[in-house]
Amino acid sequence: MERVPFYLPENAAELLRRVQTHGPVVQSVTNPVTTNFVANTVLALGGTPAMVDVEGEAGAFTQIAAGVLINLGSPHAEQRTAMLEAAHGANVHGTPWVLDPVAVGTLPVRTALAHDLLHLHPTVIRGNASEIRALAGLGFGGRGVDASDDVADAVPAALLLTQITGGVVAISGPTDVVTDGTTTIRVHTGHRFLTRITGGGCALGAVVAAFLGVSRAGPAAAGNTPHSDLLATVAACAAYTIAAQIAAERCVGPGSFQPAFLDALAALTPDDVVHLGRFE
Amino acid sequence: MERVPFYLPENAAELLRRVQTHGPVVQSVTNPVTTNFVANTVLALGGTPAMVDVEGEAGAFTQIAAGVLINLGSPHAEQRTAMLEAAHGANVHGTPWVLDPVAVGTLPVRTALAHDLLHLHPTVIRGNASEIRALAGLGFGGRGVDASDDVADAVPAALLLTQITGGVVAISGPTDVVTDGTTTIRVHTGHRFLTRITGGGCALGAVVAAFLGVSRAGPAAAGNTPHSDLLATVAACAAYTIAAQIAAERCVGPGSFQPAFLDALAALTPDDVVHLGRFE
Amino acid sequence: MERVPFYLPENAAELLRRVQTHGPVVQSVTNPVTTNFVANTVLALGGTPAMVDVEGEAGAFTQIAAGVLINLGSPHAEQRTAMLEAAHGANVHGTPWVLDPVAVGTLPVRTALAHDLLHLHPTVIRGNASEIRALAGLGFGGRGVDASDDVADAVPAALLLTQITGGVVAISGPTDVVTDGTTTIRVHTGHRFLTRITGGGCALGAVVAAFLGVSRAGPAAAGNTPHSDLLATVAACAAYTIAAQIAAERCVGPGSFQPAFLDALAALTPDDVVHLGRFE
Repeated sequence: MERVPFYLPENAAELLRRVQTHGPVVQSVTNPVTTNFVANTVLALGGTPAMVDVEGEAGAFTQIAAGVLINLGSPHAEQRTAMLEAAHGANVHGTPWVLDPVAVGTLPVRTALAHDLLHLHPTVIRGNASEIRALAGLGFGGRGVDASDDVADAVPAALLLTQITGGVVAISGPTDVVTDGTTTIRVHTGHRFLTRITGGGCALGAVVAAFLGVSRAGPAAAGNTPHSDLLATVAACAAYTIAAQIAAERCVGPGSFQPAFLDALAALTPDDVVHLGRFE
Repeated sequence: MERVPFYLPENAAELLRRVQTHGPVVQSVTNPVTTNFVANTVLALGGTPAMVDVEGEAGAFTQIAAGVLINLGSPHAEQRTAMLEAAHGANVHGTPWVLDPVAVGTLPVRTALAHDLLHLHPTVIRGNASEIRALAGLGFGGRGVDASDDVADAVPAALLLTQITGGVVAISGPTDVVTDGTTTIRVHTGHRFLTRITGGGCALGAVVAAFLGVSRAGPAAAGNTPHSDLLATVAACAAYTIAAQIAAERCVGPGSFQPAFLDALAALTPDDVVHLGRFE
Repeated sequence: MERVPFYLPENAAELLRRVQTHGPVVQSVTNPVTTNFVANTVLALGGTPAMVDVEGEAGAFTQIAAGVLINLGSPHAEQRTAMLEAAHGANVHGTPWVLDPVAVGTLPVRTALAHDLLHLHPTVIRGNASEIRALAGLGFGGRGVDASDDVADAVPAALLLTQITGGVVAISGPTDVVTDGTTTIRVHTGHRFLTRITGGGCALGAVVAAFLGVSRAGPAAAGNTPHSDLLATVAACAAYTIAAQIAAERCVGPGSFQPAFLDALAALTPDDVVHLGRFE
């Protein structure tokens, strides 16, 4: 492992500034359970959500999108076709895309689809420890969307996946671990309430897509480097979990956490990221 | 353009009173992103939401519904069939229906469908400036659901659409413009937070359907006139945007705006509409 | 009718304690309108939601789930196949399952499907008075999801349904009536706000599935009895409606009721159920 050659909080702050300024279009091909929360999260962040998931539209729209999320939460037949269309389209147009392998391992339809998508080289894979282990063939998945494995136990799986995709893998948990196979960064911010609402992981995937989009659109905050996708993913995890931490202080339970989180994300400043970010 | 021959605030107040008294059934064939917010908005308004969008049910139910919303936000194959079924059914049963051409222009599947629906004579078309221009063939659509055109620039497109449908067109924006081709009315109330949550436009479409339903059900508030669909649409835009204005004063960001908006809509009185309405 | 042979509040409290301790996996095959609220309700309760509704996954997952909800709110073609798969799977694996016959009677596709599912012997049927009457062939259904019949008028229909299924029927309303055909129990807690948000009934179905799951998993709270599914259903209705009652005191309208309800459910203690429960 090499040392991270950049000042992470400043880089994350600069990318958040760009998201808030440019309003990147984030396309999501995702599930009906959390699609509303994903769209509201992208709006609160300052991006432009486009939930374009129809066969015949999902592929072409990747040319307009700054970043794409493909989330396997509820892969009905037409949705599966749209996901493959979107992944191929993103690759053709050079649009970064995020794969969220929700509940792979246990469930056969999405597990097969996840492997097809894996070999289309997602820019970033984001999942919980059980999902990352199952996708790498090193575990059997959790109980549906539940993570029954520890983040640390999933690091070997994440490294294996980076070898297949050539991209970044982010494991979400009490500490988020982000790796591109060469450099591994830990993001220590966050709050357990993100696991007490549905979509806490799904929405982070869309936020990663937004940060990838602005990172690639301009000159890299910390110079143009082979690590720019890694740094964008780290920045997204930091901004998202810092907003959660701020929101958790202003709510009484998971019900009031959700509006408080969107409020906190909408009010989040680059300075907050510099002051509250905890990286390693 | 003729002058508006009625006292608009009183008319809007009377129609709100009827919605709250009669609880009109509003059928929606809409997208999974915002369907929950649309249903909760209809409930808060005092109506009865019925999200009947299944092939083989969507057409027949238009006989029971007081008004119907057809929203192109996520037009999967079965949904497209249900939309055409609902439009035909509504026409057969004389039920007013609203077309919301979400993101037409950019996206091919829904653009083709929007043109099919356009020629089935929607009672009202409601969209943002980019959608109205694209539907009229005078623009290329925004970036997905985003309005990149000004409301004023979309007025010629709206007038063109009224000639095709014989109905009303409402352009949503900082000022809403509602026209039936003869009379054009501007509604100046509202708040930008409606653009910071997903579904701010979708839910207004359902509210318009509710107002159309009660407007046609009884004697017109301001006499039975050729303008009654226009006036019902204006009343819906006013009630909806006044509730948004009230809610914006009671929240700290887009997250807390959503529950505050539903609370404000549920508490909205006809008197509020008279006192706060700003029409031109 | 025999008298209920158990101390109902203590039994309900014990089952809530088990849900909070065991975190049962609740599988839902449900509609896009309320799926987000259903998942958040299961999370707030302390369970683990799994919205597994894809053909080829829905059946097999019933072996992992502690309880299953099949909700007819938006029965698209693939969803219908998944529902039948899930019902058969649950029967094979001995997993209790709840049928929520949303808007049957008026709407042909779901009414036919509801009758197919009825003959697969759901453990519990939960609906409003109009739905229960329509499912039993004793009424024509409400206006979509609306209950236009009184709970008391639906009791004969509920008794008829228990003869077909051999299971439990719960009628939701100002007072919930729960019967297994032999014993009938009334739950008097609740609040009208549950009817002013979409999904107030849907989410209760998932809560019933959670309580059935933990009731069958361990020794019965009140001894192993032929009434255990009845008692689990009563306990679920009580916990759910008590949380609604607590939340209603802390909100200003239906918009703020929803987060307040999830907060109240997450904070609900077994003692609250003992102190606030009102059974008959």
